[in-house]
Amino acid sequence: MKDHFPTVTTGPLPASRRVWHRGALHADIRVPMREIDLHPTAGEPPVTVYDSSGPYTDPKAGIAIERGLPRLREGWVAARNDTERYAGRHVKPEDNGFAEGTRLTPEFPVRHEPKRAKLGRAVTQMAYARAGIVTPEMEFVAIRENLGRQAARQAQIRDGEAFGAEIPDFITPEFVRDEVAKGRAIIPANINHPELEPMAIGRNFLVKINANIGNSAVTSSMAEEVEKMVWAIRWGADTVMDLSTGRNIHNIRDWIIRNAPVPIGTVPLYQALEKVGGIAEDLSWEVFRDTLIEQAEQGVDYFTIHAGVRLHMIPMTVDRVTGIVSRGGSIMAKWCLHHHRESFLYEHFDEICDIARAYDVSFSLGDGLRPGSIADANDRAQFAELETLGELTQIAWAKDCQVMIEGPGHVPMHKIKANMDKQLAVCGEAPFYTLGPLTTDIAPGYDHITSGIGAAMIGWFGTAMLCYVTPKEHLGLPDRDDVKVGVITYKIAAHAADLAKGHPAARIRDDALSRARFEFRWEDQFNLSLDPETARSMHDETLPKEAHKVAHFCSMCGPKFCSMRISHDIRAEAQKEGMAAMAEKFREGGELYLPLEDAQ
Amino acid sequence: MKDHFPTVTTGPLPASRRVWHRGALHADIRVPMREIDLHPTAGEPPVTVYDSSGPYTDPKAGIAIERGLPRLREGWVAARNDTERYAGRHVKPEDNGFAEGTRLTPEFPVRHEPKRAKLGRAVTQMAYARAGIVTPEMEFVAIRENLGRQAARQAQIRDGEAFGAEIPDFITPEFVRDEVAKGRAIIPANINHPELEPMAIGRNFLVKINANIGNSAVTSSMAEEVEKMVWAIRWGADTVMDLSTGRNIHNIRDWIIRNAPVPIGTVPLYQALEKVGGIAEDLSWEVFRDTLIEQAEQGVDYFTIHAGVRLHMIPMTVDRVTGIVSRGGSIMAKWCLHHHRESFLYEHFDEICDIARAYDVSFSLGDGLRPGSIADANDRAQFAELETLGELTQIAWAKDCQVMIEGPGHVPMHKIKANMDKQLAVCGEAPFYTLGPLTTDIAPGYDHITSGIGAAMIGWFGTAMLCYVTPKEHLGLPDRDDVKVGVITYKIAAHAADLAKGHPAARIRDDALSRARFEFRWEDQFNLSLDPETARSMHDETLPKEAHKVAHFCSMCGPKFCSMRISHDIRAEAQKEGMAAMAEKFREGGELYLPLEDAQ
Repeated sequence: MKDHFPTVTTGPLPASRRVWHRGALHADIRVPMREIDLHPTAGEPPVTVYDSSGPYTDPKAGIAIERGLPRLREGWVAARNDTERYAGRHVKPEDNGFAEGTRLTPEFPVRHEPKRAKLGRAVTQMAYARAGIVTPEMEFVAIRENLGRQAARQAQIRDGEAFGAEIPDFITPEFVRDEVAKGRAIIPANINHPELEPMAIGRNFLVKINANIGNSAVTSSMAEEVEKMVWAIRWGADTVMDLSTGRNIHNIRDWIIRNAPVPIGTVPLYQALEKVGGIAEDLSWEVFRDTLIEQAEQGVDYFTIHAGVRLHMIPMTVDRVTGIVSRGGSIMAKWCLHHHRESFLYEHFDEICDIARAYDVSFSLGDGLRPGSIADANDRAQFAELETLGELTQIAWAKDCQVMIEGPGHVPMHKIKANMDKQLAVCGEAPFYTLGPLTTDIAPGYDHITSGIGAAMIGWFGTAMLCYVTPKEHLGLPDRDDVKVGVITYKIAAHAADLAKGHPAARIRDDALSRARFEFRWEDQFNLSLDPETARSMHDETLPKEAHKVAHFCSMCGPKFCSMRISHDIRAEAQKEGMAAMAEKFREGGELYLPLEDAQ
Repeated sequence: MKDHFPTVTTGPLPASRRVWHRGALHADIRVPMREIDLHPTAGEPPVTVYDSSGPYTDPKAGIAIERGLPRLREGWVAARNDTERYAGRHVKPEDNGFAEGTRLTPEFPVRHEPKRAKLGRAVTQMAYARAGIVTPEMEFVAIRENLGRQAARQAQIRDGEAFGAEIPDFITPEFVRDEVAKGRAIIPANINHPELEPMAIGRNFLVKINANIGNSAVTSSMAEEVEKMVWAIRWGADTVMDLSTGRNIHNIRDWIIRNAPVPIGTVPLYQALEKVGGIAEDLSWEVFRDTLIEQAEQGVDYFTIHAGVRLHMIPMTVDRVTGIVSRGGSIMAKWCLHHHRESFLYEHFDEICDIARAYDVSFSLGDGLRPGSIADANDRAQFAELETLGELTQIAWAKDCQVMIEGPGHVPMHKIKANMDKQLAVCGEAPFYTLGPLTTDIAPGYDHITSGIGAAMIGWFGTAMLCYVTPKEHLGLPDRDDVKVGVITYKIAAHAADLAKGHPAARIRDDALSRARFEFRWEDQFNLSLDPETARSMHDETLPKEAHKVAHFCSMCGPKFCSMRISHDIRAEAQKEGMAAMAEKFREGGELYLPLEDAQ
């Protein structure tokens, strides 16, 4: 792959411009958002939406995957003066599964020496927050979460049920600092990932979504995985996990992180297993520790650590219908059972914290014993692990490590709230990060939908980030098309949750789109939607001509039966008749248009 | 279209057989179900599932669309001796929108004289139920709802939250009679639709789904619509509404009903509007009455009647973001406003009941003022109409007419339960039949998903039937592919609701599929799923060979990382070690595998 570098999808979404808002506390920060322009006849300003797509949708950004993205945080990290550069660990053949020759993914062409904390320092956003410092990352997040709105003079009327979440009308940098200090939110931001556009995960912020990518032993390649990452964030993924389990795990990850404007998560256990030839029993703390450092130096922003899968819990899974469905969980269970020993992740958790705090790698405490079927939901094994994750949260926080908690899985609707309530109670309000949950097992091929239902609900109840599920779940590795469908489905779930929680900014987009719909501004309706190209092409299947884009009907009902067109007729007639006045009279108790029985 | 009759999709689903259960009270009834065979290594009996697909999936049934289905109910209706045959109304050119020549859909080749009640009699299932009679239709429904289970000796342990619904462990014909007598369930079954395989819609039965088909002025044809009906029921639609608004409405409907094993619903107002050339102001009670009789004679099982859109409510819609989004609702609103008169549907509702009770056409009291955007959800107009629907329910019940109530629409999650609570309170527990609801407006192209979320929730809360939404919603008329995606999505929502309500039979399928998944019985997993062909082809994208169907992994994780395979290793190791015994000891408080802190 000499001069043949991977290419990715670039270019703006329709009618969209990438705009930046400047910082006030930190003058050099530029926070990206996306503005969607409407047709002049709308008489409305552009609609500003949250944008995770990075420079890829900016026509002015010159994208060259082999160069990586601009290292925008480098100065911020350096200015804190609490880190040092060092030579770093050398890449070893086992890091790439002993791939060689044409089977070895080329190294990323640019090598940066890694940084780490100066001795004894904690360089996490939590440490700064607790010290009362508002970092550039925190201000970036605050501006980002406000979606370009200004603070209003009066308190907004809220329409939602937040179940105890406390989302302010307007997010200040100080609010972000306080949430991070309390552990209620995290800003995953490894000091070695300076290309990152910071974001926050927390119950009092917009609900976020994660997309999983990564190869397996059976299929995929570096070029496909880099494109999947760019494609996933184009459609709205807020973080991306590289769950590669095949060869070239190290080199593929380099190409991804150097080009990722979003936090990248991993499960270090996978690479550790590859290094011991796939034999779970041969895992050890030493191999794992080495892998943590390797990945922290590359810039991984959060690690899934299955330290809650403990020896005494394994018998609790023996009668389950689907056993242990977590890759990491099953690997650790196998190791524990074989060695008759407590999990080395649990035993060495203090040392894992010491590594994490030196790079600011956040924890995603893994749900290795999550239920993989409706029958296993909310069982003893699942909640035993959750309680351990609660203990580990306190240990991590004592070392200023940022923590989020992973959650299920397969859970029927009536059992979903209990998961949220228990997690809040047991884990000190650390952010919850669930996989769905799937609300029934009977629809492989459609598990983005079975899980989208549960994800929307648990997001409403307080879950901070939703890990997507694609149509390929249970069947195979997702391809690029599956990634898109999964992302759009989870953007729906997250947004439905924001609306139901009464997030002050959520309804802006729904209302703008509905006005466009009602006024037959078809292009505006498409452009405001989550997937403008699909909306447009579906419309055009039956009405493809340009004239149709201003038609006051579509092929669902045709011109005579379009209720919206008729609604306009009604309003026109009403205006002639002074309906507004009549309506006012009615509200004030006028006689016209009373119910018949009252008009006797 | 001389000898060229339409063809439809036939043939069984994979590993499936159509089986019949005989009646006990009525020896001649044969209730269809579908049995899915599993691989012999499973050591499990076939799984029986509810089947709405009619004779089309029975390889022994000779299907000829031009002949229609067997008229299995003819004898039951005749035996009641309370109906008479008569010449019936003649088809007029306006019934088909004045189509002629090659543009006129041919008549259905076989004409049956219609039946109606003998003078003064009510021939509805409700009338029979209230007289203490268990009809063949009621026994058919009872057998169908039990999914081939036998009554168990002990009460089943329930796992669900039914919000006051009372689903018995085992459905008896007497239970069905009682629910229908109370109006809590309906069995839509026009005496002129003898091809129908009876089904029930009610909160204490399995949650049902409806698929909408029908042409528009812009697109589609009789052959396409008949195939859409057969296709929709193949994938699980429990009823089908023919919402045609173009030409040939009468003749198309004949072809559909004569070949429909499920109840067919319509909105008679559409055809009435066509008869007056599309001018809403020219509608009249006379034209509408004529249309009701025309459609009742054909065999339509339920009518959507927008009698709740009343003159005094129209001003309440003036400030809405999306006005009136119901076709029927907007048409009636336009008429009322133009004539300055109360709705003729409301004023003549008594007479509509007289017609309905003479044929046993059920009412679907229309939600003409449902919200079409998040902004309009639960507004004054919507609930004013709901209250009127409650009044009309009582009027209909006084005449032994069966009633269900239509519901929204676009509703954010936090407002969904209020809809269910209000409907239960105001409409005497008549079944609720909602369109979604959509939980956000921002995803045209994916509204099967935005609404699948709301539908699952409102089904859980007690809604008896969920009207599907396809990906084409808001964009165009759904084609066959859209119909399938909509149906599968709504089967997911309905089943997730059954699970959450704790329906005693619901989990059988989930558990069987999850066992198949855990044991790598890939074919069984596919065959038990809602869409076996899609599940199989997705799996085969990356692992197409026959050998892969017994592989203990798929391309998601590959052989080394498959958590389920590793779970089997764990169990094998556990058995060697006598884990079952250890687990027992642990449960009894044994010392082995205690949490570390306890084992000090």
